[in-house]
Amino acid sequence: MTSEDARHMAHALRLGRRGMGRCWPNPSVGCVIVRDGRVVGRGHTAPGGRPHAEPQALAMAGEAARGATAYVTLEPCSHHGQTPPCADALIKAGIARVVAPIGDSDPRVSGRGFDRLRAAGVVVETGVLAEEAARDHAGFFLRVRRGRPFVTLKLAMTIDGRIATATGESQWITGPAARRSVHALRASHDAVMVGAGTARTDDPSLTVRGLGMGHQPLRIVVSRLLDVPLMGKLAMTAGEVPLWLCHGSDAPRERRSAWEGLGARLFSCPVSAGRLDPAGVLGALGEAGLTRVFCEGGGQLAAALLSADLVDELQVFTAGLALGAEGQPAIGALGVDRLAEAPRFELVDNSVDGVDIRHVWRRTTRG
Amino acid sequence: MTSEDARHMAHALRLGRRGMGRCWPNPSVGCVIVRDGRVVGRGHTAPGGRPHAEPQALAMAGEAARGATAYVTLEPCSHHGQTPPCADALIKAGIARVVAPIGDSDPRVSGRGFDRLRAAGVVVETGVLAEEAARDHAGFFLRVRRGRPFVTLKLAMTIDGRIATATGESQWITGPAARRSVHALRASHDAVMVGAGTARTDDPSLTVRGLGMGHQPLRIVVSRLLDVPLMGKLAMTAGEVPLWLCHGSDAPRERRSAWEGLGARLFSCPVSAGRLDPAGVLGALGEAGLTRVFCEGGGQLAAALLSADLVDELQVFTAGLALGAEGQPAIGALGVDRLAEAPRFELVDNSVDGVDIRHVWRRTTRG
Repeated sequence: MTSEDARHMAHALRLGRRGMGRCWPNPSVGCVIVRDGRVVGRGHTAPGGRPHAEPQALAMAGEAARGATAYVTLEPCSHHGQTPPCADALIKAGIARVVAPIGDSDPRVSGRGFDRLRAAGVVVETGVLAEEAARDHAGFFLRVRRGRPFVTLKLAMTIDGRIATATGESQWITGPAARRSVHALRASHDAVMVGAGTARTDDPSLTVRGLGMGHQPLRIVVSRLLDVPLMGKLAMTAGEVPLWLCHGSDAPRERRSAWEGLGARLFSCPVSAGRLDPAGVLGALGEAGLTRVFCEGGGQLAAALLSADLVDELQVFTAGLALGAEGQPAIGALGVDRLAEAPRFELVDNSVDGVDIRHVWRRTTRG
Repeated sequence: MTSEDARHMAHALRLGRRGMGRCWPNPSVGCVIVRDGRVVGRGHTAPGGRPHAEPQALAMAGEAARGATAYVTLEPCSHHGQTPPCADALIKAGIARVVAPIGDSDPRVSGRGFDRLRAAGVVVETGVLAEEAARDHAGFFLRVRRGRPFVTLKLAMTIDGRIATATGESQWITGPAARRSVHALRASHDAVMVGAGTARTDDPSLTVRGLGMGHQPLRIVVSRLLDVPLMGKLAMTAGEVPLWLCHGSDAPRERRSAWEGLGARLFSCPVSAGRLDPAGVLGALGEAGLTRVFCEGGGQLAAALLSADLVDELQVFTAGLALGAEGQPAIGALGVDRLAEAPRFELVDNSVDGVDIRHVWRRTTRG
């Protein structure tokens, strides 16, 4: 790996990130084609997952692709799906070398894309910025391997870990810069998810605002009994931005009909010990194609996901105030008696965001 | 102010910080003497408050002080206390120019040190790094103006603001680097303070360890009824490192005698509504000479200080784990119903400390 390779791969990863939240169930891949040290083509997976990154970058490069190096953030596909295989397109265009950080974990592709390229005489190099690429594609991999999306849990809280006063006042704990960052995070996920309590107390719309974007992630409410107000903002906008409801098999039939009538998509999920099973909920979402879910609380849903070891990343915004022990906790009861049993995370980023701080943590033991 | 002046003043401030925690009730001042761009003398207030910084720096400079500039982090004293006035010493040594960030707020000195220097023909310049100096001397100023020490509250907690499990397990939430930082913070304060609950549950020694330091800040336990174990580490070490106990006027007489017998110093403090009045406690400590107190909890003492608007700085260490709502809160009940009533702080520092993050906040509305 040369520093040149790392630089172009970083470029390809940045391109790939542009499609995050819009390509599910496909990964959002970036591709840069370089000839004689000059970038001659660029592309990333288009919204909806097609066309892929490689044919777009090849189209831009045209004849310049001949003898060039293609930097692709994931192993090029080798199977005929709804598009012809990208490996074939790269060969046909005369690409001499393909640099990709990691293989695809889709069993239809894994290793075969590289094999096909090598068989055609293309030089293949892997491992460049592999960690970054694995992180970017974590949602895609998790869905393929474990049938569930990557879960990011957001906490916007006081210094002492409170998300609202005892009376439920929560607007605004964090400042404008942090709130803007939250909207950008929403936009980089396939879906935004809250529990029924938050839907009732905050009456959120869960849309992306103020970023000049057309794209909206879909909204998910997790509510065993579907006790979410039918006159709230979520219900009122169900026809504009998709609304999915994950409910228990014991949710009243008339509520299901009412929500379906409003245009929401319903998922009947397993209930265990009187509660929705979080693994069951995420399994249903993975089956529906989601790769990245952004959970915005409340404390009970956060606790349920943490207890089941289903939180992959924490995005924490801490504001400079304290609410004390009566304030509503960011994370509900976990049933942890010993420190050794606590869910653990490692720091991946720590920065100042306006008047607040933003700290990002990843699950320590990766599956 | 030139960049040269700022550089030398920053040097003097660093020197002054070395004496923090050891000079009370005096401020810890730093002094640098510069002749023709070269540092010819340096000093900081000695442990116990004497000698002052200026005579030490002058002694080091010797004849080189003639015509030189003295950078002093606080207005030189002009009164005959237990040492001759530093203003006179600077004049006598032939110092041509004195640069000081701020005036002294001690009414015996304020403005008079500068006047005396000017009357002797010395050029006096103020304002250089005034904010930094005001921050360093905040404890000294608070005691002079308000009769109480500066209070730093430490929180070593989980991502969700918990300092122990429900069963009281707290060792260790933060990692070795953060714990080392806490020891350095202890050493830079006149005293370390905890509530009775923490003294009972954790049985701490509250000493500075692992930094190769001889200096130990004194230890304070706030306990209305003096219900702290007489067989604990604090009691056992009362003869080695000073131990002060702030109790209510209603504390049992026999417990007072027992603690006095162990060598502790007792402070009878006002009780209101069945609780020790935090302003009364700090007033007693200010009267005893303390300028900087490091409070290490627990949640109840932290809440009492915050509610009374007596926390000047928060030193927060956040570790990558969650304990959920059953965990013990870093800050107890504050009685805050509305966000607008919450105590507010502004960020002054945010950094990574080993595996944890460290964020420092200052009270927003300064008195």
